[in-house]
Amino acid sequence: MIVRLTLAYDGTSFRGWARQRGQRTVQGVLEDALGRVLGGVPKLSVAGRTDAGVHARGQVVSFALPKGADLSRLQGALNGMLAPEVVCRDVRMAPEGFDARFSATAREYRYRIDVGPAPDPFTARFVWHREGELSLPRMRAAARHLVGEHDFTSFCRRPPVGGTVRRLERLAVARAGDRVEISARASAFLHQMVRSLVGTLVAVGEGRLEPDVIPNVLEAGSRAAAGPVAPPNGLTLERVIYSRRGRRLDAGSSDPSARNDRGSHRG
Amino acid sequence: MIVRLTLAYDGTSFRGWARQRGQRTVQGVLEDALGRVLGGVPKLSVAGRTDAGVHARGQVVSFALPKGADLSRLQGALNGMLAPEVVCRDVRMAPEGFDARFSATAREYRYRIDVGPAPDPFTARFVWHREGELSLPRMRAAARHLVGEHDFTSFCRRPPVGGTVRRLERLAVARAGDRVEISARASAFLHQMVRSLVGTLVAVGEGRLEPDVIPNVLEAGSRAAAGPVAPPNGLTLERVIYSRRGRRLDAGSSDPSARNDRGSHRG
Repeated sequence: MIVRLTLAYDGTSFRGWARQRGQRTVQGVLEDALGRVLGGVPKLSVAGRTDAGVHARGQVVSFALPKGADLSRLQGALNGMLAPEVVCRDVRMAPEGFDARFSATAREYRYRIDVGPAPDPFTARFVWHREGELSLPRMRAAARHLVGEHDFTSFCRRPPVGGTVRRLERLAVARAGDRVEISARASAFLHQMVRSLVGTLVAVGEGRLEPDVIPNVLEAGSRAAAGPVAPPNGLTLERVIYSRRGRRLDAGSSDPSARNDRGSHRG
Repeated sequence: MIVRLTLAYDGTSFRGWARQRGQRTVQGVLEDALGRVLGGVPKLSVAGRTDAGVHARGQVVSFALPKGADLSRLQGALNGMLAPEVVCRDVRMAPEGFDARFSATAREYRYRIDVGPAPDPFTARFVWHREGELSLPRMRAAARHLVGEHDFTSFCRRPPVGGTVRRLERLAVARAGDRVEISARASAFLHQMVRSLVGTLVAVGEGRLEPDVIPNVLEAGSRAAAGPVAPPNGLTLERVIYSRRGRRLDAGSSDPSARNDRGSHRG
């Protein structure tokens, strides 16, 4: 019996999702809490292995429910231990074979930038404050070169075994007042890919990089060609999308790299 | 030469505004920062002496600028030391005689409540999460009994020397989705008055108190008659209002209690 959790968290005080010895991580505190509620730590699958300081509004985690464990009080018990820093927004049974990581068909991230003269104490944990104007037409022109299927090596910190080709389905730049928001959607992202895309769009918006050099940046296959990596606090994993049946997409696949590739998803 | 600062702060990690030995307070960190920039700590006047855990978006502070001090880089220097926890939003010269505390004609607070099933990690520092429905018609009926000039002893933790009569100009209850917001405006508030009003309105909204007993609660002159004090994290000092001339209103008054009364303003 597969359980699917939807989580929101403030990543400020975590060393990212993945459990690491001696570090406080989201996986670590969640596993400890689940162990107390279920009487044993389940093996978790996660849709987005967010980096240190990155947040989530719609992170998805799945695990096999231990025999005899009671699901009805799971959400309340988890929130009693972890909220409001980590909040369990939803608990449900998933179809057999569902896997939060391998069943996901797309991930959506949003990066928030505040270009006003002073930071805002009420949003500072979740927004990158950088003073000075950004040209949205320039950023959008650059984004158009990035959407589609490309080798994103130039926007990746640790290239995975499965390769660095990804299909970026959406890269949109919006503005309201002093807030500039960049939304990115892809079936999967490489490590630090969203923050590298954002850093590059910001360099273009500042006039330090021309929109039309983006094809060259992609072609270079080198991180040095792209703009700097934007800080983690502006980034939030907003949503993970699953096909209606919620089945593992590569069920029956004999190609292990297909899994590996999808599994390489990072913020 | 009088300087007027407008501040926003996240009050979560402060023991309130007022400097206290061995405690981290907003006044304490601001005075330390001003001392470093100006070469000496000025005597501050503040519009709202917020309690521990209470926030501000439009707090106002005034002080006499030491001779020879440079105002032009004050905002940048303060934000370099204190932002984003405490942000200086504005620095300006004020008319002679201006005093952030005594010149203020009104203070506006807002209290934010989340009635949804789970807290939101992105707003939890600034919003009181309490599960369960609230009846807005009941809360508004109770608020109508509270607006106007009353002896607010029942809604005050530490009655000041100057008396406990205040004129509550506005007490409004609004709702959007799971968010209930209570706005309060008065020339001055008593200690813990807004949080006591909110706690009482919530008790009415929950059905534990009838709207029509509010006149009796006021008349009782006892904290036991009112509802519990709402937690500090939901409360924000939004704005301080000054008359156009920015003059000290009681300039020339020979009645010290008039000052004392106004000075007793607390969140």
